[in-house]
Amino acid sequence: MKIGFIGFGKVASNLTQIIASPNITFYTSGENRSNETLKTIKNSDVEVLTDFKEVCRYCDIVISTTFPANALDVAKKYGKYCSGIYLDLNNISPENTFKINQYVSNFVDGAIIGKIDSNNPLIYLSGKKADDLLFLDEFIKTKKISDEIGSASKLKLLRSTYTKSLSALLIETYELANSLDLSDEFFDVLSETEGDDFRDKSLSRIKNTQKSSKRKIEELEEILDYFGDLKMVEAALEILKQY
Amino acid sequence: MKIGFIGFGKVASNLTQIIASPNITFYTSGENRSNETLKTIKNSDVEVLTDFKEVCRYCDIVISTTFPANALDVAKKYGKYCSGIYLDLNNISPENTFKINQYVSNFVDGAIIGKIDSNNPLIYLSGKKADDLLFLDEFIKTKKISDEIGSASKLKLLRSTYTKSLSALLIETYELANSLDLSDEFFDVLSETEGDDFRDKSLSRIKNTQKSSKRKIEELEEILDYFGDLKMVEAALEILKQY
Repeated sequence: MKIGFIGFGKVASNLTQIIASPNITFYTSGENRSNETLKTIKNSDVEVLTDFKEVCRYCDIVISTTFPANALDVAKKYGKYCSGIYLDLNNISPENTFKINQYVSNFVDGAIIGKIDSNNPLIYLSGKKADDLLFLDEFIKTKKISDEIGSASKLKLLRSTYTKSLSALLIETYELANSLDLSDEFFDVLSETEGDDFRDKSLSRIKNTQKSSKRKIEELEEILDYFGDLKMVEAALEILKQY
Repeated sequence: MKIGFIGFGKVASNLTQIIASPNITFYTSGENRSNETLKTIKNSDVEVLTDFKEVCRYCDIVISTTFPANALDVAKKYGKYCSGIYLDLNNISPENTFKINQYVSNFVDGAIIGKIDSNNPLIYLSGKKADDLLFLDEFIKTKKISDEIGSASKLKLLRSTYTKSLSALLIETYELANSLDLSDEFFDVLSETEGDDFRDKSLSRIKNTQKSSKRKIEELEEILDYFGDLKMVEAALEILKQY
């Protein structure tokens, strides 16, 4: 089986390792790629073709792992050359999956849940052709959630609605606990109901959110754009904007 | 040892069962009590004295388990007759513990975390005399958190800040998930990071919050009154007011 990547960054290079199998050969192209990407390609077990048109024509499955902002353009430009499955794994909005679907046949909407280089990343798929990708479950937890394009992206956004608001709530209550000089007790008392790992998990969420607050703000704004008024998300946005 | 109760409802009757021991005798009074309370007293293993003045004079430890709104009046009225420890277990504000402390010597501020008739309730104590109550840990998980009156009540309020806002966040995201027809997937995907019991725990929190939304609204208002502006709590309040 031939799997091609459009864009070859962290997600693609990790996937070639996760899905490594004697029956699968990976392909990509160096067409208009940065030096950094060329280096990543060189260090990976992947065959290099002249351009992405060739990657699309040649492969059974093409996976778009470029930047979210490029995902639609890439699909418009190369999708028409794919006769196999075209899987988008970029973190894109449900609206963009509908647009891509107009340019690509055999399109599958995919969302990676968790970090690709974490212990247990998970791929959610939607679209009629998603069934043909369920063999991936042998290598990485893979679930099809529906035949409808957009469902995987919606679910990812829905998950973010919860996790990002929760992080903002943790920031607000942890700061309050600190101001009362009760932060240890705060974690202790909540561990009773939230589990023994509540402290570590919460501190890691707080740290991650504060470290990449600019990106989290953009993601919260996307959520509000797409889902409309959500009071907890609006409050979370205000909290993150203080950083 | 003689332990007296001022007020004898669910908390007191459960405590007489939890702390049951051959060395301990429980006391209360039927003074100005409702028929319901008199029935609870009759069904419990507790000695009945003429009035609460006598209960206070006679007992080594007096526990106030009346209504939060009565806690201060009860302390004003009877506290002066206590020579032993006076423990308040009502769900009162930190400010009220400071007031009570003016009328009662050997005052201990106590907070029950979790429901008294649940699997694992927990008592947090603060105040210098709390050490003398740590024997309770033999019967019910009991922790002293500081010498300062008010710390236990502050911790309880701080815990509520988190748990009640979390419930509102769950309500908001679950409704969104339902509107997208993705509620099963919402629980599934979050179980990956939040634990296998995420679905059951969340649905139970949502149900409890909606069932007693009036009381939860009052508690959120108390939190805002005491701790000042908290954006997630304000948003939670708006969500609960929709019920």
